[in-house]
Amino acid sequence: MTVAVYLPLAEKTQWWVEMLQGLLPGWDVVSMHDEIDPGAVTYGVVWRPRTGDLAGFPNLKAIVSIGAGIDHVLADAELPEGVPIIRTVGKDLTQRMREYVALHVLRHHRDMPRQLQAQAESDWHAIVVPVAPNRVVGVMGLGNLGAAAAQTLAGLGFDTRGWSKSAKDLDGVSCFTGTGEMDAFLDGCEILVNLLPLTDQTRGILNADLFAKLAPGACVINCARGPHLVDADLLAALESGQIKQATLDVFHQEPLPADNPFWSHPSITVTPHVASQIDAGTGGRLIAANLKAFEETGTCGDLADAARGY
Amino acid sequence: MTVAVYLPLAEKTQWWVEMLQGLLPGWDVVSMHDEIDPGAVTYGVVWRPRTGDLAGFPNLKAIVSIGAGIDHVLADAELPEGVPIIRTVGKDLTQRMREYVALHVLRHHRDMPRQLQAQAESDWHAIVVPVAPNRVVGVMGLGNLGAAAAQTLAGLGFDTRGWSKSAKDLDGVSCFTGTGEMDAFLDGCEILVNLLPLTDQTRGILNADLFAKLAPGACVINCARGPHLVDADLLAALESGQIKQATLDVFHQEPLPADNPFWSHPSITVTPHVASQIDAGTGGRLIAANLKAFEETGTCGDLADAARGY
Repeated sequence: MTVAVYLPLAEKTQWWVEMLQGLLPGWDVVSMHDEIDPGAVTYGVVWRPRTGDLAGFPNLKAIVSIGAGIDHVLADAELPEGVPIIRTVGKDLTQRMREYVALHVLRHHRDMPRQLQAQAESDWHAIVVPVAPNRVVGVMGLGNLGAAAAQTLAGLGFDTRGWSKSAKDLDGVSCFTGTGEMDAFLDGCEILVNLLPLTDQTRGILNADLFAKLAPGACVINCARGPHLVDADLLAALESGQIKQATLDVFHQEPLPADNPFWSHPSITVTPHVASQIDAGTGGRLIAANLKAFEETGTCGDLADAARGY
Repeated sequence: MTVAVYLPLAEKTQWWVEMLQGLLPGWDVVSMHDEIDPGAVTYGVVWRPRTGDLAGFPNLKAIVSIGAGIDHVLADAELPEGVPIIRTVGKDLTQRMREYVALHVLRHHRDMPRQLQAQAESDWHAIVVPVAPNRVVGVMGLGNLGAAAAQTLAGLGFDTRGWSKSAKDLDGVSCFTGTGEMDAFLDGCEILVNLLPLTDQTRGILNADLFAKLAPGACVINCARGPHLVDADLLAALESGQIKQATLDVFHQEPLPADNPFWSHPSITVTPHVASQIDAGTGGRLIAANLKAFEETGTCGDLADAARGY
């Protein structure tokens, strides 16, 4: 079996090649940045693959996304049809997302941006906020990551809602389903967390229309994908005060260009796509285990649904 | 029954007087800022009482602290001996402290101070941190607030330790007891939260000796009382790097004077004693319920132990 690895940076790819080689003794692991024999490749392990690379492997059995999302794979206009796509979703990924969501919801809940501003002015100014059970927070997307995030927020005491395309049942979380219940989900929501998969249905979902349905002065946290957000609509909603603050971990273009207005906006916190990074050690072990299972059984636990988009 | 109320600000005291009067129909509620008949007063409800005020009430049955700590009552050099002291500890107080501790432990865990610095420089710089189960956090003091904080941190996935004077048993928390186990508790601790009561034994406990026993580059969060901390020792430990960052909610003098170096220290976050404020509505209901219970039965659930100091 030959595993061909691609990440945009050749050096980082080489690092993954060597790590996976150590975890898959007896397999061949190669870099798509090097010259390789396309006919030999049986598995592609990729992050943001180049258009056409995967189509060039006639004997490809499966594609592994280095991450929970598969949108970056589906973005390959020449993606070979019918090849199974395996996601990489580990305990660590879920744990890190829980941490990120808890941190940033609490930051907005307790208004740390304004509190830090008071400190900068040596101003002993206590900001009065409701107690978490009187604060409505909503999580859009209740997959592995969204469900864990929502339950973590409920555990912290927040009045927690969740919204997803298909019906879910989560302890301590009021669950809303489908487009028909979207308005009810948004009504009164004070802190909104987006953890939806990126699909044609969810692209641009964080827009002026949605912002207007939240509680006035709501906060928005996007830790899913950049194209979920209509950037100009967020800037306008911050300007009008309908949105008070936002925390963004993902962007249309990453790294976020140095001249993007988000960097210096007083009401936007920018984090560099770190909400839930797979650390290479954990990711490598998960990928190796999935590849071995797929090779032996023809399937594995983390198969994505390309038609659904996640 | 006559309840005499004192907070340092006359206006705030009057506000409490009126609220408690509404909650205690048939009782007399008065302000110690006004002229009152000392012999009539059966209960004192106080925050930082003036020295000698309580000693002037010959028929005092009990003293209520507007807050969880009683150190501010015990600081009255003429405090009448043997008068029971009732603490004010509500669900909201515990909830707010859980939020504060979770927020600030997560902030230090994910190094938000450095992340915000990167944003200020438009620098797409991902800070790599361990996942919470590989992060050792410790809570000193396992009373109502400390126990709830420690269990919240354990629920977020942290490797959580607790230390207290008397033995405790908390799900998911490694508990250490007494001075004999203090060094073991501190060894390897990366984020330390202080929630001890302020007593003669704990005054100045956050000092150079303790800081040296933590993991190098540890973070410290003080949300108990200002005098727990030796300010100069913290500044020296930040200078040497033994302590990386600190978050302080409480200070020797409050409000923190405008010329205090903590305000502008790049590695110190100052919050204005807001970790767990009682909101007056909730606090008033708790105090009224405790006063009624004490008047009927001679005791109530929130009695402090003056000899112990909390």
